[in-house]
Amino acid sequence: MTYAAARAAIGDSEFDRDTKAVGRAGEPGTYDIELSPGWVIVSAINGGYLLAVLGRALREALPHPDPITITAHYLTASAPGPAVIRTQTVRTGRSMSSGQASLFQRDEEGREVERLRVIAGYADLDAMPTEVRTAARPPDMPAWEECLDVHGGPESGVIPGSTALLDRLDLRLDPATAGWALGSPSGAGEMRGRLGLADGRDHDAISLLLAADALPPTALDLGLKGWTPTLELTVHVRSRPAPGPLRVAIRTRNLAGGLLEEDTEIWDSADRLVAQARQLARAPR
Amino acid sequence: MTYAAARAAIGDSEFDRDTKAVGRAGEPGTYDIELSPGWVIVSAINGGYLLAVLGRALREALPHPDPITITAHYLTASAPGPAVIRTQTVRTGRSMSSGQASLFQRDEEGREVERLRVIAGYADLDAMPTEVRTAARPPDMPAWEECLDVHGGPESGVIPGSTALLDRLDLRLDPATAGWALGSPSGAGEMRGRLGLADGRDHDAISLLLAADALPPTALDLGLKGWTPTLELTVHVRSRPAPGPLRVAIRTRNLAGGLLEEDTEIWDSADRLVAQARQLARAPR
Repeated sequence: MTYAAARAAIGDSEFDRDTKAVGRAGEPGTYDIELSPGWVIVSAINGGYLLAVLGRALREALPHPDPITITAHYLTASAPGPAVIRTQTVRTGRSMSSGQASLFQRDEEGREVERLRVIAGYADLDAMPTEVRTAARPPDMPAWEECLDVHGGPESGVIPGSTALLDRLDLRLDPATAGWALGSPSGAGEMRGRLGLADGRDHDAISLLLAADALPPTALDLGLKGWTPTLELTVHVRSRPAPGPLRVAIRTRNLAGGLLEEDTEIWDSADRLVAQARQLARAPR
Repeated sequence: MTYAAARAAIGDSEFDRDTKAVGRAGEPGTYDIELSPGWVIVSAINGGYLLAVLGRALREALPHPDPITITAHYLTASAPGPAVIRTQTVRTGRSMSSGQASLFQRDEEGREVERLRVIAGYADLDAMPTEVRTAARPPDMPAWEECLDVHGGPESGVIPGSTALLDRLDLRLDPATAGWALGSPSGAGEMRGRLGLADGRDHDAISLLLAADALPPTALDLGLKGWTPTLELTVHVRSRPAPGPLRVAIRTRNLAGGLLEEDTEIWDSADRLVAQARQLARAPR
């Protein structure tokens, strides 16, 4: 199958409905949202989805539309259900503004617990200089038809828990980085894939935040099994993505101190490096 | 000259004196500091020094000693003189704690202006697993004696302003990335150097934060002149550095949207990748 027979529109898609927070009357900067169970993988809500939720709330709160640099610290595990987002405008400038946001959920005693905290700089990608000077080259990856359909394929069978996230994505893994699903990881610490959304919605600056943490962990390709929780994730959005699926290439070079980094490049269909991301995660024990 | 004929001790050095903030009585988490003019380069206080100042304040405020992941957003230009640091403990866990800190200075009307804001995760590097599994290789760089002494050399002559920072560092640039000082930048967007502190103090986790933003900007090696202000800088400290100067290797691959990234690796004398950093900076216009 080629990509995207039908396409949901940006603004009217699963991703848009599930990241929409509603501003509280009389409480500027505060938003309510119902975290959808549709973005759960194994037993946790995907960190990229959570980043997109906060990224979109900050888009509402700040005078500029696009996250240029955004960092999330994941503090406690989020769960599907109601959550509150509190944003703060840190600084507003002509070409850039800075903000902070936190997402809270209530525990069993009804106390608010902070799930993640984000600090970010926003600008307008359309207002930025168009000159590009780059030494970066797109990742070498097989065509869409030759990548592995994770959804329903052998890969999903080895995931020890919910695979709901896979219903929301159209993810095709580079076979070279999918050996873990067949019991023979490459050991290189790489993960590459082509990433669309299941309903065909094209990507925008906000869904790039999802894409920055949507692929299986590189730890699987290192032959490590178990949970690899993200401690911190920073995404630099460098350009608005062209329509069509993204190519996402992740590399882990250094496992030390029980931690590993995931270095991520996101390329669009026009061969532009539209985002760079790096996360620090706890290595499986 | 070989490195470090005499050595100041960690805790009793220029760097330690200039990053020491004093807790305010009766105001837990609030610290006063005099930002030293000794860390100015051109006309601004070095961003790595500022990160180290906040990193050290958070070390005081949090139950864990070492910044494992720390992100700074630079909001307005700092100036030498008095400043206030306000820290917040975000979460404390057994093996890791999270905090936030901001540095403020007063403007001409006496109003507090936020200079930079930091969010960070802290842990104890000595308590972390010792296993290392790495595909990273140390940068290829000439010996100490064959690197260029920036201080007083031709490089410092082309810096259009204060070179005070260079008095605090013992920085030797890889000649391959110092062509800009002689009017022939390589165009590769790289900067490499060996980095000690001028008084011979060895590095620790806090001075790694300085090292993450202490070399000349890669923009110079791209042949671009002018100010390259850091918008955001994230540092992952992966190991406590061994004694002796560090090797710092920086690469810029993608200039787009008027922004560029600087990807930084910091290696210690024991050939360990002790820190990874990435910053987003505004490209010279």
